[in-house]
Amino acid sequence: MSQSTVPARGAARTSGTVRIVGAGLLGASIGHALTALGVDVVLSDTSPAQLRLAVDYGAGRPARGDDEPRLVVVAVPPDVVAQVIEQELADHPDAVVTDVASVKLEPLHALRARGVDLTHYIGSHPLAGRERGGAISARADIFIGRPWVVCRDAETSSADLAVVEGLALDLGATPLEMDPEEHDHSVALVSHVPQLVASLLAGRFVTAPEGSLRLAGPGVRDTTRIAASAPELWVQILGSNAEPVVEILDVLATDLAAVADALRHPDAPGARRTVADSIRRGNEGVERLPGKHGQNRRFAQIVVMVDDTPGQLGRLFGELGDLDVNVEDLRLEHSPGAQFGLAEISVVPSVVHGAVDGLTARGWKIASMPND
Amino acid sequence: MSQSTVPARGAARTSGTVRIVGAGLLGASIGHALTALGVDVVLSDTSPAQLRLAVDYGAGRPARGDDEPRLVVVAVPPDVVAQVIEQELADHPDAVVTDVASVKLEPLHALRARGVDLTHYIGSHPLAGRERGGAISARADIFIGRPWVVCRDAETSSADLAVVEGLALDLGATPLEMDPEEHDHSVALVSHVPQLVASLLAGRFVTAPEGSLRLAGPGVRDTTRIAASAPELWVQILGSNAEPVVEILDVLATDLAAVADALRHPDAPGARRTVADSIRRGNEGVERLPGKHGQNRRFAQIVVMVDDTPGQLGRLFGELGDLDVNVEDLRLEHSPGAQFGLAEISVVPSVVHGAVDGLTARGWKIASMPND
Repeated sequence: MSQSTVPARGAARTSGTVRIVGAGLLGASIGHALTALGVDVVLSDTSPAQLRLAVDYGAGRPARGDDEPRLVVVAVPPDVVAQVIEQELADHPDAVVTDVASVKLEPLHALRARGVDLTHYIGSHPLAGRERGGAISARADIFIGRPWVVCRDAETSSADLAVVEGLALDLGATPLEMDPEEHDHSVALVSHVPQLVASLLAGRFVTAPEGSLRLAGPGVRDTTRIAASAPELWVQILGSNAEPVVEILDVLATDLAAVADALRHPDAPGARRTVADSIRRGNEGVERLPGKHGQNRRFAQIVVMVDDTPGQLGRLFGELGDLDVNVEDLRLEHSPGAQFGLAEISVVPSVVHGAVDGLTARGWKIASMPND
Repeated sequence: MSQSTVPARGAARTSGTVRIVGAGLLGASIGHALTALGVDVVLSDTSPAQLRLAVDYGAGRPARGDDEPRLVVVAVPPDVVAQVIEQELADHPDAVVTDVASVKLEPLHALRARGVDLTHYIGSHPLAGRERGGAISARADIFIGRPWVVCRDAETSSADLAVVEGLALDLGATPLEMDPEEHDHSVALVSHVPQLVASLLAGRFVTAPEGSLRLAGPGVRDTTRIAASAPELWVQILGSNAEPVVEILDVLATDLAAVADALRHPDAPGARRTVADSIRRGNEGVERLPGKHGQNRRFAQIVVMVDDTPGQLGRLFGELGDLDVNVEDLRLEHSPGAQFGLAEISVVPSVVHGAVDGLTARGWKIASMPND
């Protein structure tokens, strides 16, 4: 763990009391992380049950009347975020107020329309989450290494900005400054539309015959994984970022219709090219995404068969340690119904032969190794 | 490894010579797997370079004029599959001829239209593959635990059927009998349409600003992963299964338009419900997919921070072994730019406390553990 990324207890950039309004997944997760750093966290939630849960699990203490927070984090559902920000700015005039909502422009418009003084408000958005929501799913680590968008404006003082960026850094996230328009268009593209597309695609499985679904493999499982997300939250997110989402949906619908027409009339001029271009542009687009894809190219993959019995994976990794083989990445595949799994281990190419020889000598079955 | 799933060398159900026409990813992978079982494999390919590659890597020997195969496996691109099947049936009247093409109805129609005697032809389709193609990407293990659709008909003898199902079993796959129509509709739904949808979605990233893509997380990466697939092959697959693909695309386009309209006119009657229903149906649909999703529910997740230095993951798993903790599943997350990774380990709930205490005592940093 790098000290500069996640500080040890007592070394937090965040000082004083932090008030978190909304003890759901994000609010409680921030509470857990700050509490672990020794920061005084007070929690507030309109649901006494949710609040009790978050407090019991150690995300902070219940708010009192006399708390004087330096920072207020609004972590409430999108439909009430503007009104809660307004209230918090009024209640805590000396504090910086931020929010963690997934959409930045709509609450800003609402606040401006009501004439609220936004000098001490800085919108922000940690790109973090889980498929399950609520205080019960909260985890201190969900922000680590993730972008945390911070929307400053001309009114924002550098002292206030430092407070919000300090929060992001304390939680292990990477602060990124963006304006609200740019943020909302970006999340429409890389989060909101993918969510809708995955949901609509998975929706087609509701009435599919059982037999058809038996042919589903890892590809479609990955493509539809996020379709497991909670409807209540997503209706609000999509509703409050409708404009950029609709803009992209319209383009997608046009693309979809063009491909369907090309497949319907394969001999029409340009039909084959329309289909080929769709796939080719997909290749190009996916190449541009940051993250794991590119990173694994420098590693070679060895696939080892692992019995589905206790201790096997532990033994495998123990023995890889004995062989001085560092595992750079790993994918486990449990085939439904099979008595074993496949462990695809990524290693630097120079250790492949030593690893394969050593594992084979220890009785492991190598399902495959790099050809070259 | 279960002996009944993948036989040891010499214990293969497949006997005699197997002729594989087309030494690409699937053909060469079948060749590797059969060769490893001691089966005599002859390979044929219109590309001498591809053939040499497959032979050099041990997928079989080059075909000679006097080979007398018991089984011919046609593993050529979709646009030539019917003509190659016809040729192989003529050249090897005593053999069973199967193919591994992703679409089953179109080649059958073509063969029937030409009046070919199909008594010894059995179409099949192993649901296996990789994002990369060619003999160089071939791996003996890609069929293990995967469904292998076998399309028998009234003319098929049980002896011939046993040969094709024996091949599937020898390769570790699960034979599933289906008729060609059912097969083609099923793969349109769980493979061809998801491919197109992922490609079209990823296509939207081609012109996106760099900054927007920095906000991309694991969700959109998963949703678009298969967009990395090869255009040439997919143009053929989609073209030869156009009817069921178009049918589903039309429904998706209607769904997409309905959601876009609902977001455009949020106050129209039923608008919110349209959006909510889309997400909710996605929940239901994804629940119906077989595989990992359901399996992980009975396990609890512990997240451990792992330095990105050699041997750390090996040490972690070695020590989990010492603690008698069996790792049921594992997800590694390398955050871009971070000096460490997160290892999310799934274990049976009863060992969580022992594992966390033991790991903590050995100096590991637990990023999170189950709340209950």
